[in-house]
Parts: sequence; structure tokens; C-alpha cells
Amino acid sequence: MAEETWFDSYVRVRYQETDQMGVVYHANYLVWFEVGRTELIRQLGFSYQRFEGLGFMLPVTEAHASYKKAARYDDELIIRTKIARLEGVRLVFAYEIIRQNDGELLASGETHHIWTSLSLKPVRLERQQPELYAMLKQYES
Amino acid sequence: MAEETWFDSYVRVRYQETDQMGVVYHANYLVWFEVGRTELIRQLGFSYQRFEGLGFMLPVTEAHASYKKAARYDDELIIRTKIARLEGVRLVFAYEIIRQNDGELLASGETHHIWTSLSLKPVRLERQQPELYAMLKQYES
Amino acid sequence: MAEETWFDSYVRVRYQETDQMGVVYHANYLVWFEVGRTELIRQLGFSYQRFEGLGFMLPVTEAHASYKKAARYDDELIIRTKIARLEGVRLVFAYEIIRQNDGELLASGETHHIWTSLSLKPVRLERQQPELYAMLKQYES
Amino acid sequence: MAEETWFDSYVRVRYQETDQMGVVYHANYLVWFEVGRTELIRQLGFSYQRFEGLGFMLPVTEAHASYKKAARYDDELIIRTKIARLEGVRLVFAYEIIRQNDGELLASGETHHIWTSLSLKPVRLERQQPELYAMLKQYES
Repeated sequence: MAEETWFDSYVRVRYQETDQMGVVYHANYLVWFEVGRTELIRQLGFSYQRFEGLGFMLPVTEAHASYKKAARYDDELIIRTKIARLEGVRLVFAYEIIRQNDGELLASGETHHIWTSLSLKPVRLERQQPELYAMLKQYES
Repeated sequence: MAEETWFDSYVRVRYQETDQMGVVYHANYLVWFEVGRTELIRQLGFSYQRFEGLGFMLPVTEAHASYKKAARYDDELIIRTKIARLEGVRLVFAYEIIRQNDGELLASGETHHIWTSLSLKPVRLERQQPELYAMLKQYES
Repeated sequence: MAEETWFDSYVRVRYQETDQMGVVYHANYLVWFEVGRTELIRQLGFSYQRFEGLGFMLPVTEAHASYKKAARYDDELIIRTKIARLEGVRLVFAYEIIRQNDGELLASGETHHIWTSLSLKPVRLERQQPELYAMLKQYES
Repeated sequence: MAEETWFDSYVRVRYQETDQMGVVYHANYLVWFEVGRTELIRQLGFSYQRFEGLGFMLPVTEAHASYKKAARYDDELIIRTKIARLEGVRLVFAYEIIRQNDGELLASGETHHIWTSLSLKPVRLERQQPELYAMLKQYES
């Protein structure tokens, strides 16, 4: 069950993402986390674009990343994403970045979000979009 | 006279801007060009933010960069910017990136822009904002 | 014949790549060009990583981009890349960025490169790696 | 005393750093944190570049950011940085991002680092560079 709540997406490391240490610059993992949650939402049959169309945004209120091994140029990576918590105005995603060729865990992390209006005021998703809330809620794990 | 038409701004190279070649990743020069034209507009007593407040945007239609020597981490750079052409819906900026400690020219370039509405439709600045147009026009060189 | 000399790769626009104009920030097209030439080299059975392993680098000496229509968040794009010129120390790639759902051409461009040693001194590929040179040369178009 | 342990550096928000939400994309705060610690090291009379010259690197092992208010295009920001912990192979920096015109705290965060050799093996700074270690240690707070 817990297995099924992770959603996978894929990226290949771009030269632009490396730095003079010869490895990926650490801030880029947050960008991959964003790719992961975008893809999770798509795999649920929705799209983040549609959230904005409905008048919602989902800004990041906290971001955490823990770096274990370095990703390098041209590595193929799996971004594993799950909904770690959904309640009230808050949504937390958890992530793992896996190197595809050997399954090594390179990094993990979390991002915390709040549901807001287009003018960035917090809103309670469960009231305004109860069906969407319920759909997301069942994938919380 | 020609001297006076260049406007200077300053950046220091960030670690994030380097790549595994040990030098600055080439696309970042376009970001510095943006810093340069923002600063030029500010030095003219205006702001790009205010353009958007007035209902104008200035998207890039062409960008050119020529790379001569590599900028490196922590280098202090001068971004020299001028208005190379202003006519109808079009505005062209020219740029030079100079290494501050020895005056070496590292790169040069141009960006071409069109004036648009907030919905990205082309507009003629000289009709809609004749004073702004006249002000910018006198710095064309 | 000319048809066959274009190599395709694919990206989906990341939220990070947008700006407050609501479209993709123009410098990101240069990053996609890099994705395109990396993939071209891979499709030829080589890898840019291996170039560096052999002691070569391929820094950019000029970059040009022409923007026709805006790419937006979550758009699926095709990056078409070809070898436009190979001679002496120089290599020129040409690119087209196509929106996948309607085939619209969003941007085109070129990057010019020189073959260098790892210490960034120009080298003649055809002397040092004649087979690699010959292989690439047949795809010039 | 505690006052003196914060080191200030300054950035102005670039258009490139915004996203289609109209505010700064969250991953850019990590880049500003890097600007902050680079500047802290410089204000101590050293430079991160020199660390690498001495054979050390300081990769990030953890990054945390907490976002309170949004930074916007062209905002002038103060990056306040301090050495929060130095012991063994580890170094922790803490950060605050302040909007300059009204003193508002926009974000805070931490990055955890380990001292490594150029081949990314952990090293004990206090053994290999006791004077540098002692100098940094006195600013821990």
C-alpha cells in the first residue's frame, strides 16, 4: 500500500545543473522536487496548471533537502514523490532522488505548501474544492 | 558623447553560475544582460517594474552573445549596457561584460525586444507613451 | 536526406523556467539547446561526457536565439538539433524548439563551439581524433 | 556580541529569479544563501576560492529554507549570514533574508556542510588547517 503512494518521474542531469565542484549544484534538487510534484499531480489526472485555472496556487512555505551522494552530468535520475500530509490549508510532499543505473539514493527532501488564492491569500481546499481534496487525501501516506 | 551612452552595473559571479568546466555557464550571460538593462532603465530614472505597471512588457525577441574569455567564480564584473536602437515597436540593447580587475572584455551581445501589452500584443511606444519614448530615444547610440 | 540530419529530444517546461511575464524566461532556451546537442551526440553513439574523458571540451563561443512564440509552463517541447558546420577547431549546432501539441515553431537558434583541451586551449579535432571527426562530419548539413 | 556574528551581503532580485506566480521562485533563496556564505568568508579575510586552492571543498549536505513573505522582482534584499556551528568535519551556516526598504524578514534557513578534499572525501579541518579552524570557530554563534 505504502509502496503505491510514491509516484515516479524522470530527469537527466543537464550540464547547466553542474557547478565547478563537478557535481550538481544543490539548489537544483529543489527544481527536481517541483518536477516530481507536477508529475504526481498529472498522474492523478489533474494538473498544476489547472489548479491555477481554478484560482488556486500552491506556494512553498518550507523546503528541506538532505544530500547523500552527488548527482553528476548526464546521470539519469528517478524522482519519487508522495503526498506526505494534507490538512487544512497545508500540503506536504516528500521526495527521493534515485540514480537510475544503480538504484542509489542520492537525496531526499520535503516541501511544505499552502493553498492560496491567486493573490496569495490562504484558502481551505476542503471547503472550496471538496472533491479535489478528497481525491488527494486518499493518496496521503 | 558615445562614452556617456553606456551604463554600468556590477555583479560578482556566483558559485551557482559555474559549471563543471570550471567557468561560468554560457546562458548566465543573458541573465547579466537582463541585470544590465534593468539598471540602465533605473539610471534613467525609470524602472522596468513601472513599465509593467503602465501596462507594457518588453519581451526578448532575439538574443546574441559572443564569448571571448571565461568568467570564473567570484570574479567581479562590469556589465556595460546601451540602447543601440529604438524605433516603432522595437528596442535593441547592446552589452559588454568586462572583468573588473584587469578590464578584460569577456563577452559582448545584444538583445532585441518588442514593446507589448500585458497580454503580449505589440504596441507602439511612441504613440502610447510619447514622453517615455522621447526620453529613451535621446540615449540611443 | 536533410530531414535525417535533425535529431530530436524532448523536454517539458518546468515552473522554475517561467518568469513573472507568465512565459518561459528567454535564457532557458539556451539550456534546452544544450539538452539538444547532448542528445544529438548520444544518438550518434557517443557522449559529451566521453569527450571530456578523452581530454576535449566544447565551450560555446557564440549563442543566438530567435524567439517567435512563448513557451509556457508544462508545455511539451521538441528540441530539434543538427550539426550545421564542422571545420578546423569549430563546430556549429542549429536548433529549433517546437511545441509538441500543435507543431508550432517557438524559437530557433545556433551555438558556435570550439574544440579545446581540458585547459581550454583550442585543438584541431580532425588531427587528434580523425575518426570522431569523420563520423561527425557526415552529419553536417 | 551576538550582533557582531551576523554578516550582511546584498542582492537585488533579478527578473530571471521570478516565476509565473509573480514572485521569486523558491529555489533561488538557496542561491542567495550561497552568496551570503561566500561574502561571510570574504569578510573574514578569506575566500571560498582559496579553500579550493588549499585543497578543500565545502559541499552542502543539508539545506533548509522557511518562506514567510514573497520577494519580488527588483526588491533589494539583505542576506544575513552567520556560522551557527563548526565542529569536526561539519559547518552549519544560518541565514535570514530581509527586505531592505522595510526591514521585513522574508525567509530564513540553514545549510549544513562538510569539509572535503577535492575528491569529495571528508576531512577534519581542525587537524589540517588548525589556524583557519580557530579563526572560524571564534565567529560561531
